[in-house]
Amino acid sequence: MTGGTETLPGGSVAVEPAPEAPFYRAVGDEEEVFRAAARGGLPVLLKGPTGCGKTRFVQAMAHELGRELITVAGHEDMTSADLVGRFLLKGGETAWVDGPLTRAVREGAICYLDEVVEARQDTVVVIHPLTDHRRELALDRLGTTLRAAPGFQLVISYNPGYQSVLKNIKESTRQRFVAIELGFPPAEAEAQIVAREAGVGAETAQALVRLGNAIRDLDGSPLREASSTRMLILAGSLVAQGLSLRTAARSAIVQALSDDPDVVRALGELADAVLPGT
Amino acid sequence: MTGGTETLPGGSVAVEPAPEAPFYRAVGDEEEVFRAAARGGLPVLLKGPTGCGKTRFVQAMAHELGRELITVAGHEDMTSADLVGRFLLKGGETAWVDGPLTRAVREGAICYLDEVVEARQDTVVVIHPLTDHRRELALDRLGTTLRAAPGFQLVISYNPGYQSVLKNIKESTRQRFVAIELGFPPAEAEAQIVAREAGVGAETAQALVRLGNAIRDLDGSPLREASSTRMLILAGSLVAQGLSLRTAARSAIVQALSDDPDVVRALGELADAVLPGT
Amino acid sequence: MTGGTETLPGGSVAVEPAPEAPFYRAVGDEEEVFRAAARGGLPVLLKGPTGCGKTRFVQAMAHELGRELITVAGHEDMTSADLVGRFLLKGGETAWVDGPLTRAVREGAICYLDEVVEARQDTVVVIHPLTDHRRELALDRLGTTLRAAPGFQLVISYNPGYQSVLKNIKESTRQRFVAIELGFPPAEAEAQIVAREAGVGAETAQALVRLGNAIRDLDGSPLREASSTRMLILAGSLVAQGLSLRTAARSAIVQALSDDPDVVRALGELADAVLPGT
Amino acid sequence: MTGGTETLPGGSVAVEPAPEAPFYRAVGDEEEVFRAAARGGLPVLLKGPTGCGKTRFVQAMAHELGRELITVAGHEDMTSADLVGRFLLKGGETAWVDGPLTRAVREGAICYLDEVVEARQDTVVVIHPLTDHRRELALDRLGTTLRAAPGFQLVISYNPGYQSVLKNIKESTRQRFVAIELGFPPAEAEAQIVAREAGVGAETAQALVRLGNAIRDLDGSPLREASSTRMLILAGSLVAQGLSLRTAARSAIVQALSDDPDVVRALGELADAVLPGT
Amino acid sequence: MTGGTETLPGGSVAVEPAPEAPFYRAVGDEEEVFRAAARGGLPVLLKGPTGCGKTRFVQAMAHELGRELITVAGHEDMTSADLVGRFLLKGGETAWVDGPLTRAVREGAICYLDEVVEARQDTVVVIHPLTDHRRELALDRLGTTLRAAPGFQLVISYNPGYQSVLKNIKESTRQRFVAIELGFPPAEAEAQIVAREAGVGAETAQALVRLGNAIRDLDGSPLREASSTRMLILAGSLVAQGLSLRTAARSAIVQALSDDPDVVRALGELADAVLPGT
Amino acid sequence: MTGGTETLPGGSVAVEPAPEAPFYRAVGDEEEVFRAAARGGLPVLLKGPTGCGKTRFVQAMAHELGRELITVAGHEDMTSADLVGRFLLKGGETAWVDGPLTRAVREGAICYLDEVVEARQDTVVVIHPLTDHRRELALDRLGTTLRAAPGFQLVISYNPGYQSVLKNIKESTRQRFVAIELGFPPAEAEAQIVAREAGVGAETAQALVRLGNAIRDLDGSPLREASSTRMLILAGSLVAQGLSLRTAARSAIVQALSDDPDVVRALGELADAVLPGT
Repeated sequence: MTGGTETLPGGSVAVEPAPEAPFYRAVGDEEEVFRAAARGGLPVLLKGPTGCGKTRFVQAMAHELGRELITVAGHEDMTSADLVGRFLLKGGETAWVDGPLTRAVREGAICYLDEVVEARQDTVVVIHPLTDHRRELALDRLGTTLRAAPGFQLVISYNPGYQSVLKNIKESTRQRFVAIELGFPPAEAEAQIVAREAGVGAETAQALVRLGNAIRDLDGSPLREASSTRMLILAGSLVAQGLSLRTAARSAIVQALSDDPDVVRALGELADAVLPGT
Repeated sequence: MTGGTETLPGGSVAVEPAPEAPFYRAVGDEEEVFRAAARGGLPVLLKGPTGCGKTRFVQAMAHELGRELITVAGHEDMTSADLVGRFLLKGGETAWVDGPLTRAVREGAICYLDEVVEARQDTVVVIHPLTDHRRELALDRLGTTLRAAPGFQLVISYNPGYQSVLKNIKESTRQRFVAIELGFPPAEAEAQIVAREAGVGAETAQALVRLGNAIRDLDGSPLREASSTRMLILAGSLVAQGLSLRTAARSAIVQALSDDPDVVRALGELADAVLPGT
Repeated sequence: MTGGTETLPGGSVAVEPAPEAPFYRAVGDEEEVFRAAARGGLPVLLKGPTGCGKTRFVQAMAHELGRELITVAGHEDMTSADLVGRFLLKGGETAWVDGPLTRAVREGAICYLDEVVEARQDTVVVIHPLTDHRRELALDRLGTTLRAAPGFQLVISYNPGYQSVLKNIKESTRQRFVAIELGFPPAEAEAQIVAREAGVGAETAQALVRLGNAIRDLDGSPLREASSTRMLILAGSLVAQGLSLRTAARSAIVQALSDDPDVVRALGELADAVLPGT
Repeated sequence: MTGGTETLPGGSVAVEPAPEAPFYRAVGDEEEVFRAAARGGLPVLLKGPTGCGKTRFVQAMAHELGRELITVAGHEDMTSADLVGRFLLKGGETAWVDGPLTRAVREGAICYLDEVVEARQDTVVVIHPLTDHRRELALDRLGTTLRAAPGFQLVISYNPGYQSVLKNIKESTRQRFVAIELGFPPAEAEAQIVAREAGVGAETAQALVRLGNAIRDLDGSPLREASSTRMLILAGSLVAQGLSLRTAARSAIVQALSDDPDVVRALGELADAVLPGT
Repeated sequence: MTGGTETLPGGSVAVEPAPEAPFYRAVGDEEEVFRAAARGGLPVLLKGPTGCGKTRFVQAMAHELGRELITVAGHEDMTSADLVGRFLLKGGETAWVDGPLTRAVREGAICYLDEVVEARQDTVVVIHPLTDHRRELALDRLGTTLRAAPGFQLVISYNPGYQSVLKNIKESTRQRFVAIELGFPPAEAEAQIVAREAGVGAETAQALVRLGNAIRDLDGSPLREASSTRMLILAGSLVAQGLSLRTAARSAIVQALSDDPDVVRALGELADAVLPGT
Repeated sequence: MTGGTETLPGGSVAVEPAPEAPFYRAVGDEEEVFRAAARGGLPVLLKGPTGCGKTRFVQAMAHELGRELITVAGHEDMTSADLVGRFLLKGGETAWVDGPLTRAVREGAICYLDEVVEARQDTVVVIHPLTDHRRELALDRLGTTLRAAPGFQLVISYNPGYQSVLKNIKESTRQRFVAIELGFPPAEAEAQIVAREAGVGAETAQALVRLGNAIRDLDGSPLREASSTRMLILAGSLVAQGLSLRTAARSAIVQALSDDPDVVRALGELADAVLPGT
């Protein structure tokens, strides 16, 4: 490749979709509630800790419902233009390029705004008219308004334990959504997930889940977040690449959870006690 | 669809208006005051809690008066250009594109600025000359000034319980408006609204309103906002999609009102006590 | 209308001037001082509470002196370019467009900067050379300097009770201006103003002024601003549109002055006591 | 005039220079020091209260030395580009336009940066190489450096009483300048200045200077700035336009010095006691 | 050279790659863990103090694995566009230019984000979808998404002792990475590194490592960072250029560690005690 | 002159180099250390108070080593683009213009970043790869990386007494540099420098140095910075232009050191006691 310069929007650049169906194990009535919201075109708010499977849940529901899923990761500097679209200069004229939310509205897709609370307020306000009976998206810069295509559904997520007082989702936004709370799955289900996603045997997965739950059960934990399903999968993946269970857990769980030497030592001893091997 | 690129302002993009008349049940003399203000071309300030029906009230009045309604949602990053308009590059020339306020001024529409207190100060100042006998909008960037067409009326809203000391509507802005205070409707009227908007039977609607009022009446409530009419409608919509009343209330009301496990549990018990079913 | 797009500076967009002479009732020697400053080309600073008639006073003086009046509302985000002008792209060349201050300087008009203390410091500094014997406006971006045409006069206003410690007019700016303090007019004059501007009878106007003065005389008032002449006119306008005096006062004065339920109730009782009717 | 649009840099826009020589009365050895600095091409820092005559002093020295004077008013948003110059788009090419400092450097003029402490730090740093033996101005955007023409001299001013702890002139900047402190002139000289600048008789001027000194001598004054020579001239100008001495002093001095009703009353009584007339 | 102007992306500007293999001495199982992560395409987080060899470790691993290494230094103002790419104007059209992360994703290179915690949040969020099973990079401005080429691996680093409470790596980011902790190497290994990198004899290198460890072992050290391997190499390089060991240590270690005269004196005495020579 | 407009990069604008060799008197082993660093291509950090001669030292070393010196003054708003370069629009194409650091890297010059701690963090990070064995400069916007030409050396300076806790040079930056501390020269050397630079006799220079040292020796000094060599030269220059020693010292030293009337008086008395004359 000679330098990475190409005109917009290129033809050679293509998204290769992941063909396989996402793996999700329901814990409560979250699938039932999501399906009802989807039938009614009602927006959904997913609440739950980091790495518990919120993204995977949306992927599974989108797959089951046969809808396209457009995911946007929220961040502090995200503006409404990042969602809605913007003008770009092209051949001396300004041309409008749809943002991911606008694409979802036009095409009737599910638009998943991950950690939307990170975004600036204007990104939140732009989605309000999409959440009530209007189902409209104002394209102020185009001087027009889009009615959402059938099938369009808005899903947002956030981590309640993670939000500060200063940065929280506005009440006037929250109460427009059907709220679904997700937590870490029960041990058996979590082991199935780890085994399948990391490509390891049941015994390894179960050992990792035991370690995960042992850490989650620590009293007065100094950790800001508990060991997540995602970390257990990562540790499993290292085992699948040939590392010992203990070395894998130390790299993907213990060292990832803390920088404090005392905490790292204590977690390491816990891992050695829980995991098989020498 | 090949990529969402189109020239501005497109012809294929159209606003499809909602044909049906909005449903609003008057509580006090708010309709009488609004009509008087409309006859005199006087600006109106709507005060009231989130989700009590401010937007629906404006929609109903605009429909009754036969005027176009242009709604703008205020947010922290909204600038005067978002209201008034801006120049865009087109064919090597800069072309002016009207903002929603300018369109309303030209066409004699009602311009509804929702939660205008969220916007930056410059958006507030730009509307001042529209609120007195001048009824003018300065288009500084065009070096010109527009006299509002007959029928133009400015309506702004805000939530008094929601404003902080730091962020409040300026006194010099407030006193230019006829102020109308709205609250949650009486039980009977609210049940009619829920039944009609959610498409559920009277009994379901009444049960949801009983739950809403039970939560509103909680002493020393830890909730920042009470259960709104909007939440009751959302819960009703889930029932209309097949969920049980309790599951619907849990998703659309209880989980939406709080992230605190204790509060969620207490509200859930209240919902189980108030709502029929097992 | 097809979309509100037009080239700059358009010919079809026109300012329709208000033909009638503004109504102003002098209270002290403010007209005499203003005329002397106008004869000498000296800049004027108007001090006074919100809604007491500062803008109306300038309009009346401009009318009496036969000068064009160009008004600019100050706001937090106003920059010197908003006053002086800026370059815009036109036909591949950058073209300069005069701001309102530059237009006033060229044409010998009165330039009225309302609430200039709201603007950023650079807008204040740009007016300094216009306030002394130089009467110059530096157009830095053009690399040139304009000498003000005869008749040019700078008038700024601010509300002393409204300014915080953090945001105040600089001493080095203040002492360049002839300062005129305005207050609310005496009862008889205020009633004349209300009657004329709202289009109501003398009795209604007098009743509203009585209510206004009763509120202004409240001891230990919790209100940040008193009831202004502007509010009384607004209440009168509602009466002229058919509302009862009490309903009009409640909407345009009581609800506009406070969001506190206790204060609103107390002011409502005061209004009922002062105003005729049931 | 049709709209204030013209190409850059226009030919019809011209600076009309003030022909008369500025009037300055020396108090100490400030002229001698300035002349020595001018002979050596050394930069000068003027310190003194607002309105004491710093600008007038520089104008008088520039006139005596036969040098062009280019004045720039510092403000919070001033950047180095405002001093040095910038690129503007012209006919599809970017064209460089000199800023006022660059023009002074090329033409050997005196460049006077008024209240430079208000400007952003980058404006201060850009002048450093102009203050030592290098006498260079780096035009970074042109990729070149200018050696100052003979006659170029940099003069900056600031008000020591006005600066906060947070905003002060950097030590590494200060010590590059010959510092000259200016204060209010002695009574006789100040009366001459007021008489000449305001166009009033000696008696009126002397009365105003007596008032000015009475205010400056107040013990425990609540005023942030004293009555300046500039204010006395402004009061004199109102007298020259026909106002009485007391009305003029009230508008140009008393009301300009304070918004506090008690302070305004006390100063008004002082003015009535000091000034002749009823 | 006449002025440094050339069109983009130039052909005459070329990167001359460093041919020699980087020298790295493993301390623990860091190489084994890195190789497993590389085989699985798993992202790696390197933790360790400034100058301990994190960059050198990545260089050595990239060399061993035969992959291209693209390094990006994080900083406070780095935005996602700095990583992903941006549009530049070219011949009247906007042309997209890949950022370093996008280049690594396309070409299957290792992308090393050094001190990524310094960057703004949006740079962190953009890498999330690259860290899980999706291995995708969203090019929002192109309206497309890239699947990472085989061989692509993301490596980030940060210094745990250096981070403040306000600025830390997000938990939801951390737990996506295999974490490897690096420290200063043991004395023998560090002496080999110093000797090789600085081009000095074993004795000189050992003396410098003795000094480094003596400083690291100081009780209650007032230093914010310890003497790093990098500083020892720098001191060795000065010796290789002819300075005495003591002068070299004073310049590259003692004066670099502190500005406090007392600390500088104490460290200087320590250096004189530890190092040979007079 | 018609307006200061010229195309970029102009031919008529030229840098006239200063032909004479800079005068520097070594105090310690600073020249020896600098030469060793220069031979090894190692970066140098100069520490020392304002006006002690850091810039002069670099100029002298560059002259001795026969290398071009490119100086950049750091400031709060300086970005990496100011060092590295940027794109400018030219004839409809974007053309790259090298910044001063890039020019030095290409041409093998010494690049001196004065008070680099003032600059934003991203300017600091961009120089990291230039300080180690890579000697590379990443031109991210060009998508390329430059290897530094032989002879390139990076020199940065800062004033340890001047830095606040909030704004300091990062440890990870510091430890990449050979640190050289400079102070005020001994009395005899400083007198030679003052005599030569100001063009005054030995006696005058010695008197000024006596005053400088008397101020530096003041116990519990209220001054933020001591009297620098630069100030003594400036006072000498005023003497060379005909002022008396006492007037010169008062303007260039006493008034420049403080605005506090008491401090100014005390320093003035000290100057009168130390300096000859009446």
